[in-house]
Amino acid sequence: MIPTMLTHGQYETVYNFLSLVIASQLFTAIFLLISLPRILPRYRQAITVAIIVCGIAAYHYFRIFDSFKGAFVTKSVGGTGTYSQAAGEAFNEGYRYVDWLLTVPLLLVELVAVLALARSIQRRLLVRLVPAAALMIALGYPGEISGDNGLRGLFGLLSTIPFAYILFVLFTQLSKSLKTQPAGVRGTLGRLRFLLLLSWGVYPVAYLLPLLNIEGADAWVGKQVGYSIADIVAKAVYALIIFSVAKIKSYDDDPTFREIEGSHDDVAVPAERSRSAA
Amino acid sequence: MIPTMLTHGQYETVYNFLSLVIASQLFTAIFLLISLPRILPRYRQAITVAIIVCGIAAYHYFRIFDSFKGAFVTKSVGGTGTYSQAAGEAFNEGYRYVDWLLTVPLLLVELVAVLALARSIQRRLLVRLVPAAALMIALGYPGEISGDNGLRGLFGLLSTIPFAYILFVLFTQLSKSLKTQPAGVRGTLGRLRFLLLLSWGVYPVAYLLPLLNIEGADAWVGKQVGYSIADIVAKAVYALIIFSVAKIKSYDDDPTFREIEGSHDDVAVPAERSRSAA
Repeated sequence: MIPTMLTHGQYETVYNFLSLVIASQLFTAIFLLISLPRILPRYRQAITVAIIVCGIAAYHYFRIFDSFKGAFVTKSVGGTGTYSQAAGEAFNEGYRYVDWLLTVPLLLVELVAVLALARSIQRRLLVRLVPAAALMIALGYPGEISGDNGLRGLFGLLSTIPFAYILFVLFTQLSKSLKTQPAGVRGTLGRLRFLLLLSWGVYPVAYLLPLLNIEGADAWVGKQVGYSIADIVAKAVYALIIFSVAKIKSYDDDPTFREIEGSHDDVAVPAERSRSAA
Repeated sequence: MIPTMLTHGQYETVYNFLSLVIASQLFTAIFLLISLPRILPRYRQAITVAIIVCGIAAYHYFRIFDSFKGAFVTKSVGGTGTYSQAAGEAFNEGYRYVDWLLTVPLLLVELVAVLALARSIQRRLLVRLVPAAALMIALGYPGEISGDNGLRGLFGLLSTIPFAYILFVLFTQLSKSLKTQPAGVRGTLGRLRFLLLLSWGVYPVAYLLPLLNIEGADAWVGKQVGYSIADIVAKAVYALIIFSVAKIKSYDDDPTFREIEGSHDDVAVPAERSRSAA
């Protein structure tokens, strides 16, 4: 439930975290856009998708931020008063789902694209992962907007089925493809799945808070902060790791490219570079 | 403490300085974005990070500016009255911390990236500098929002520990790496550390003003002006110096590139150019 009243500290916490997400997503997208020529063309599909994901997230957080500012208004003096929802519009939580419906399938496209697998293998992974991701988000939504804890639990459970299936595909079928990757990135790509598991794990926890009767303004503020951090890790941090994988693979694929792009020392001691990158 | 009332002159001073920061950061970012092809690819990582830092700072100053305008409103006619916070929202000072949390670690990334060191040395410097910078900002925040001078002093002191550690790394470990740099930029890079020390030194001074019982509207306006100037020097001026280092290094690395990019005189008397740049 959305609280009707926030203290000044609670209001500023949510306000600053929503703004932090905007800055993180927007400038990760801009950073990747500027850096796109600095990887080989065959990895640019992955980074282009990453730019789009961060861009979409920035857009939706602008909307969430505006909705929050419109929902909680104050009449009080100088930073001591409370912020009430009574005088404002209703806070729209549906934005997050619209965002996730678009971005979560794309996050999996990013991961598969940076592997640069044969087209048939890539397709086999994507026809499994993308519909499962969309289904996972779509099944969560009816539970989120329902006031009824039974319905919330039911849809939470249903949405866990495609989530488990995604993890199954990532940790079994993808593992075979990881073996074909250069040694320097295999470890990073393996860990990327755990980052995904860890950051995606925040969403069901926040989702289930009402079932544990954890309510009130503090719980709601905690949920907003949790969703914000999870979105930064799952999209912006994730995208930067995908970019560093794309850069290492570009250098490995093409020594001339490494010579132009890398530092002097990188060129002089490639063994050193590979070792430290592993 | 945020004053409840500002004179017309105080209001305009803060307003103009906040706007000056937006212009400085935004157009430094745009200048560097346009100039990116004018340095060798191996130095573009440093300048890309500089663009992102100035961009993030511009974004946050837009927010600070908006928050300031929303917080202080006047009912009087024609520029003679006072501006009161009573009628507005609370001024949000947390933005600065959100900005610093993102940009301060990146300022150190910029400095290390322009050196174009071997990847292993680069990593060794960054794993020390980046977490220390984030910790320094995070430890300052509880003191800043606390109304209690004891807590302010305590967190100010705690936050000085990582700051001292950063200076230690910059003035000892980085010195070794400076020796590998071309003669023409060694002096500039050495001085850059003093610019960083000087501009970063403004923040703790402003932070400690309440401990010296320097309060009231004038002190607050002074703090806003001080933070604004420090942010321009530490980000925009710093970025332009990093860019000039990247340009000199690009010319030194590749005589053909210098011939295309440099002026006639640069090409005719390279010795003279190196000497004057030193």
